[in-house]
Amino acid sequence: MKIRIITTGGTIDKIYFDQKSEYQVGEPQIAQVLRESNVSFDFEVTALLRKDSLELDDADRQRVREAVAATQERLIVVTHGTDTMVETARVLKGVPGKVVVLTGAMQPAIFRQTDAVFNISAAVTAVQLLPEGVYIAMNGRIFDPEKIRKNRQRHCFEEIAKS
Amino acid sequence: MKIRIITTGGTIDKIYFDQKSEYQVGEPQIAQVLRESNVSFDFEVTALLRKDSLELDDADRQRVREAVAATQERLIVVTHGTDTMVETARVLKGVPGKVVVLTGAMQPAIFRQTDAVFNISAAVTAVQLLPEGVYIAMNGRIFDPEKIRKNRQRHCFEEIAKS
Amino acid sequence: MKIRIITTGGTIDKIYFDQKSEYQVGEPQIAQVLRESNVSFDFEVTALLRKDSLELDDADRQRVREAVAATQERLIVVTHGTDTMVETARVLKGVPGKVVVLTGAMQPAIFRQTDAVFNISAAVTAVQLLPEGVYIAMNGRIFDPEKIRKNRQRHCFEEIAKS
Amino acid sequence: MKIRIITTGGTIDKIYFDQKSEYQVGEPQIAQVLRESNVSFDFEVTALLRKDSLELDDADRQRVREAVAATQERLIVVTHGTDTMVETARVLKGVPGKVVVLTGAMQPAIFRQTDAVFNISAAVTAVQLLPEGVYIAMNGRIFDPEKIRKNRQRHCFEEIAKS
Repeated sequence: MKIRIITTGGTIDKIYFDQKSEYQVGEPQIAQVLRESNVSFDFEVTALLRKDSLELDDADRQRVREAVAATQERLIVVTHGTDTMVETARVLKGVPGKVVVLTGAMQPAIFRQTDAVFNISAAVTAVQLLPEGVYIAMNGRIFDPEKIRKNRQRHCFEEIAKS
Repeated sequence: MKIRIITTGGTIDKIYFDQKSEYQVGEPQIAQVLRESNVSFDFEVTALLRKDSLELDDADRQRVREAVAATQERLIVVTHGTDTMVETARVLKGVPGKVVVLTGAMQPAIFRQTDAVFNISAAVTAVQLLPEGVYIAMNGRIFDPEKIRKNRQRHCFEEIAKS
Repeated sequence: MKIRIITTGGTIDKIYFDQKSEYQVGEPQIAQVLRESNVSFDFEVTALLRKDSLELDDADRQRVREAVAATQERLIVVTHGTDTMVETARVLKGVPGKVVVLTGAMQPAIFRQTDAVFNISAAVTAVQLLPEGVYIAMNGRIFDPEKIRKNRQRHCFEEIAKS
Repeated sequence: MKIRIITTGGTIDKIYFDQKSEYQVGEPQIAQVLRESNVSFDFEVTALLRKDSLELDDADRQRVREAVAATQERLIVVTHGTDTMVETARVLKGVPGKVVVLTGAMQPAIFRQTDAVFNISAAVTAVQLLPEGVYIAMNGRIFDPEKIRKNRQRHCFEEIAKS
């Protein structure tokens, strides 16, 4: 079993440049998190994009879909900014023969207190257990992207109430 | 959905007492890990035992089994020392109507570098996705306790080769 | 002995707001750093300003000088952004009866890897040992503000070469 | 300016061996702490002993004294277990031409919450500012080893009350 990881940027990979006193999306952090967590499965990282998810456009999402479709592996984790994670997840639906789990973080992986390690683990665990399809792993839960939104006030994802 | 967490001690909860210059099993760390990771599911912690897993005996394992059987919740995560996690998992088999996932850590949760956060996330994710039964979540993988052992040289769990 | 701490903002206190995906100067971190480091001296924090040091103007520096002059304590540590720390230090010269040590950080205190804890310790140590005057504690050294500059390429402070 | 660092073991360098489920004194942590803290002074580490300070005997202390006397550098930081740090400091008194500062930690450097970084910084700062002699840097203060003891109940060093 091998998990393909596709990174697109977002808060999870934010670093800080003192010289400019600003944040930028840096190198993918996920490989280091997985190594430090002593995982024994095989994985490979494709650093596809390096953007805040608010900056991702339709062409970017199409690139992610193409990258997912082109992987040899069946199991795929996509790290992504949280603001438009749901939109990208919906674009990824329907790629045949793949289990895709998107995750990200509210606080960068390089912080002392971050949800990055937890969310990465949730995604790599879920991708091994779920059937074909596209899912979001955030806040310790696994969501169907059709039934979820980010609640910016409460800083978490939640199910859309049925009407 | 609510997850019941039963803690039994082990490396994951090891703390350090300078006064005696030795390690001891401390308060369960899992609640703090879950809070810091911003989870939105409901959980409750039962601090059942506080032992190195090498010190657990048959009576202790029976107590864990009784605690699992007595929970109201269907989803149960057990934190446990790694050395005899497999033995306890086998004792827990057959409790009806429960999904039980055991996890622990090779390095204490209070270390800067630890597998505790990752393993806790794997367990709470897996317990939501798996059918009734008993499982072990370690090293980023989900194992059947009948087919697994701890490899002390390589510091990880591995499947037992079929004969 | 009591140390007065005056905070003005800067990278050391930078936090991250996911909602806006940007950095802002947050609450002073120094009190928590001192508590976690188990210090036994008495201290009190005055949160005076909360700015990037590039945004500090002459009026701000004058406010810092007035705050220093108005303290009851003889020993004063000022946390400050690194970009204009030298300018502020020079403005503070000549306040009678005070030992003033400025410090800050290149990486926020909330990062897993940060120079904040080290620099805060250097400042509180130096302020106890130095005679009246104004000093900068950065990169493990104590500098005279008249003979120092920030080297932005090398991300550290250095002495100005004598001509 | 160059600082010689002599390490003798103690809690500051404690690591955890899962295989034996016990603590042991590991590699000196101080070099990594100094590098991560972005220090710009020159230093070199002599890993002299690797013991709990309760295990140090008179011969060990004599070895430390000889190592201090034999250094080329004038500025020397000694990392040491806290339980007998005062005894060793007293043995080091009288070595001519040296500024010696001893420090250690109540919690290992590899913990998320530790006083190791703070204490190391205090020691390297103090060694640059103090006159010839032997000192202890702990709990954010600089002590004369003749007037200090470890208070094991309060987990800190304190001055011996004058009689």
